[in-house]
Amino acid sequence: MIVGELHGDVCKGAGDVHRQVDVPDVLFIFFGATGDLARRKLYPALYELWRSGELRGRMAVVGVSRRPFDDEAYREFVRKAVNEYRPFALYGEAASSFLERFFFLSADVGKPEETAKLAARIAEVEERFSLSGNRVFYLSIAPQHFAPIAQSLRTSGLLESRGFRRVVIEKPFGWDLRSARELNAALLGAFDERDIYRIDHYLGKAMVQNIAVLRFANLLFEPLWNRHYIAQVEITATETVGVGDRKGYYEAAGALRDMVQNHILQMVAMVAMEPPGRFEPEAIRDEKVKALRSLRIYRPEEVPLFVVRGQYRSGVTLGEAVPGYREEIGNPSSTTETYVAAVLFLENFRWWGVPFLVRTGKRLARKRTDIVIHFHTLPLTVKALSGIEGEELAPNRLILRVQPDEGIFLTFNVRASRSPFQLVPTAMELSRGEAIGFNTPEAYERLLYDVVVGDPTNFTRWDEVEAAWRWVDPIAEFFAAAGEEGLAFYPAGSEGPEEAQRIARRHGLPFTSLVDERAPVLP
Amino acid sequence: MIVGELHGDVCKGAGDVHRQVDVPDVLFIFFGATGDLARRKLYPALYELWRSGELRGRMAVVGVSRRPFDDEAYREFVRKAVNEYRPFALYGEAASSFLERFFFLSADVGKPEETAKLAARIAEVEERFSLSGNRVFYLSIAPQHFAPIAQSLRTSGLLESRGFRRVVIEKPFGWDLRSARELNAALLGAFDERDIYRIDHYLGKAMVQNIAVLRFANLLFEPLWNRHYIAQVEITATETVGVGDRKGYYEAAGALRDMVQNHILQMVAMVAMEPPGRFEPEAIRDEKVKALRSLRIYRPEEVPLFVVRGQYRSGVTLGEAVPGYREEIGNPSSTTETYVAAVLFLENFRWWGVPFLVRTGKRLARKRTDIVIHFHTLPLTVKALSGIEGEELAPNRLILRVQPDEGIFLTFNVRASRSPFQLVPTAMELSRGEAIGFNTPEAYERLLYDVVVGDPTNFTRWDEVEAAWRWVDPIAEFFAAAGEEGLAFYPAGSEGPEEAQRIARRHGLPFTSLVDERAPVLP
Repeated sequence: MIVGELHGDVCKGAGDVHRQVDVPDVLFIFFGATGDLARRKLYPALYELWRSGELRGRMAVVGVSRRPFDDEAYREFVRKAVNEYRPFALYGEAASSFLERFFFLSADVGKPEETAKLAARIAEVEERFSLSGNRVFYLSIAPQHFAPIAQSLRTSGLLESRGFRRVVIEKPFGWDLRSARELNAALLGAFDERDIYRIDHYLGKAMVQNIAVLRFANLLFEPLWNRHYIAQVEITATETVGVGDRKGYYEAAGALRDMVQNHILQMVAMVAMEPPGRFEPEAIRDEKVKALRSLRIYRPEEVPLFVVRGQYRSGVTLGEAVPGYREEIGNPSSTTETYVAAVLFLENFRWWGVPFLVRTGKRLARKRTDIVIHFHTLPLTVKALSGIEGEELAPNRLILRVQPDEGIFLTFNVRASRSPFQLVPTAMELSRGEAIGFNTPEAYERLLYDVVVGDPTNFTRWDEVEAAWRWVDPIAEFFAAAGEEGLAFYPAGSEGPEEAQRIARRHGLPFTSLVDERAPVLP
Repeated sequence: MIVGELHGDVCKGAGDVHRQVDVPDVLFIFFGATGDLARRKLYPALYELWRSGELRGRMAVVGVSRRPFDDEAYREFVRKAVNEYRPFALYGEAASSFLERFFFLSADVGKPEETAKLAARIAEVEERFSLSGNRVFYLSIAPQHFAPIAQSLRTSGLLESRGFRRVVIEKPFGWDLRSARELNAALLGAFDERDIYRIDHYLGKAMVQNIAVLRFANLLFEPLWNRHYIAQVEITATETVGVGDRKGYYEAAGALRDMVQNHILQMVAMVAMEPPGRFEPEAIRDEKVKALRSLRIYRPEEVPLFVVRGQYRSGVTLGEAVPGYREEIGNPSSTTETYVAAVLFLENFRWWGVPFLVRTGKRLARKRTDIVIHFHTLPLTVKALSGIEGEELAPNRLILRVQPDEGIFLTFNVRASRSPFQLVPTAMELSRGEAIGFNTPEAYERLLYDVVVGDPTNFTRWDEVEAAWRWVDPIAEFFAAAGEEGLAFYPAGSEGPEEAQRIARRHGLPFTSLVDERAPVLP
């Protein structure tokens, strides 16, 4: 039955440890209720959870932002958002019963005195729908507001409800280790660590959650998942778009903070972690922390040997002429990196000597997020096997494609019956649209659901954040000190700076081409 | 270019060690030239080799049988055969230039005095096409003729040509170890072992030849190919047809001699063999012999614990009512087995304790030949991974489908996004019609080509035959002694006798269903 199916969709599998639970009722308080993230992600995801029956009749929302909205304007805003970002329209009974649970408070969240108004609104809404006091405070706002809001929430008594109170924090969690610690301290002044949900939406993606399943539910992979069989791990998260409307934030953050400190390192941790003692949230996060802590931290002077940063110049992406980053943000001397490639090493028994090549960037040739496991080559050549002079055997590769098209690929060598003098590398593809990839819930649906049911598995624990910053800090410091020196410019729409291949080759295999489709598909 | 492609098609990959060679010219002498095998397999295959350019202009054929044919009648016979068994018609220049190289000798190959006629025919044809005296004697006749023919070939001096002389022997190679040795001795009186090509057409099949490539050209499989990771090997070779027009032969041979002693044990050897020291014909066959010699040989009294034989009764296959075996051959008391299932063990370090389940039979539910590698289950349950009560994790399986539809499948567990509380076993399929399976040459094309170029890799060496009979003999003796006792009757069109599952379960996992398609394809 459809509800059951969709019910399924909004839950999780890989790190999934919660039993089939009764979903509690909940009040969402969205700070930044009229922002881009809320509009593009949160409202559409909430509606999915409503439509699927998961939260139907069990939720209400108080949206907070500076905009001079009333409830009606807010509901119209939400309705538009849902219709824009969901293939089907919001209509009928479901629509109205959904929208009538949205309420707005126009307030400057910076000003503590205004939290009194918020308290009133919350009380009113919880009363009206007889909610049991479970509150999720979603901070979809600039990070400098996190601490003040947490502070005022505590003083206002809003955190003393009958039910649970949880806070959801969007990235960035700090700008470096120091600021992250300050932020965390401020949050801990108001919330328990177990109530702080640091969102990394990559952890909500089906394919990222599949990493653990592939590793631990398949004997084919588990015994091979170490330095003895894996030559290299390659993680790619590239975009074709530019900085868009996040200019101020991005110019200050750069690709290293925006993508590597969180998403990329989280994927590294998922690939690298040891099997948890139990498949339970804290046990899993314990292993991820261990993995991140085993990262070799580079001294500033080592950074150029392992890390490359780039910035896009004008060029052509997807057939369209686009300006360079500096023009785009109107800062002709910006040294912010829009591209980072790095070679990471985990100094532990499982991964010693295995390069983890990671890269991320904007305005590149292709939007692509995937993890490629390069297995060692066998000690045999085509010649040895076929008697024919020929290239080396292609190494096996396991490819977890996160986006744009989810899929799992396995490349291996078979005898080619059409030209049997050669062994051809061939790709198996786990049929998409079947077990995975089809009707996959949006990451935010999974994650919002997790917050409500209290499953922190796919959120970043403080010690993970801390470990990530420890690795990032010296690199960020080096970038800042170097200024334009060592900043590799690349034309928009390209594969990124050639320097990336230089460091890749120094430590391992080159990065696979962003556009070459031969890898995952059949030759 | 097409020729190149087709050239490819008639060569081999897996055990392939020959360099790109000049194919020598050759005269084929077919004994049993008007028989079923020649008609269905040899002439169509020869025409492929001609059409592809491989043997074009470099071959001629002298056909020998008792039939009162002249050359014209023979050529018409060949033309019909090719047109019947090849999708395209034999026509035009290629056709006539092909057919005009066929000559016939009506002779009773039993009678030595007639070999003089044969010698004359051979001389005439070699002269006419100025062939260099390379001769392939193809014995597509009843085995009792092998020895006399070999004998008369030797005495007639037909084996003292300027070129090579090779003999191709069809199964059965003997009826037991003793008769096989006698036959071999007779052949060795006329030919060197290296000139004796014992055909096992299963070794000509692309997917069987792919076993070695999959094993030794892919790090994903090589390290797992042993008792530590593989729980069971299952080899199936079933047919829906009955005994057809081979009544006399089959009634005497039975499934054990007809299928197990050769095809099945050869597949066992391909799966089980150690990596050869070099990928060269004798090195590869050395390893196959080693594997066969490590088979645990059952004492007669042990046979019922490891082997099941059956015979089909009347029933319905493919919607058609069919008679039982006894009616079909007109022997109401026949105890010949039309079905054999057995559990084999190789007593070596790699395979100790791993059951090799094999089964073959006629009039079964489905025509299917494949090898299923069942990997061990992981020490984790669905519950451990997902927190949800559920069945055990499905073990990974590698499936090499030989027929009817060639393909390689890999089943493994992924997170199901549509019902994420479960991990679903899913199958990767190596897309057929691409690297493999499409335009795959017939086994006989490969093997005839191999005989001409002198590549014995995919033919059975005497010591392999010997090792196979050593394992078969006590079982055959037990069958003969037991008579009808222990003969399990099964209805035509069924999965075979239930007793097969009994012995399978005693030693390992049950046989997979012949008709259940869930295994290799997506759920």
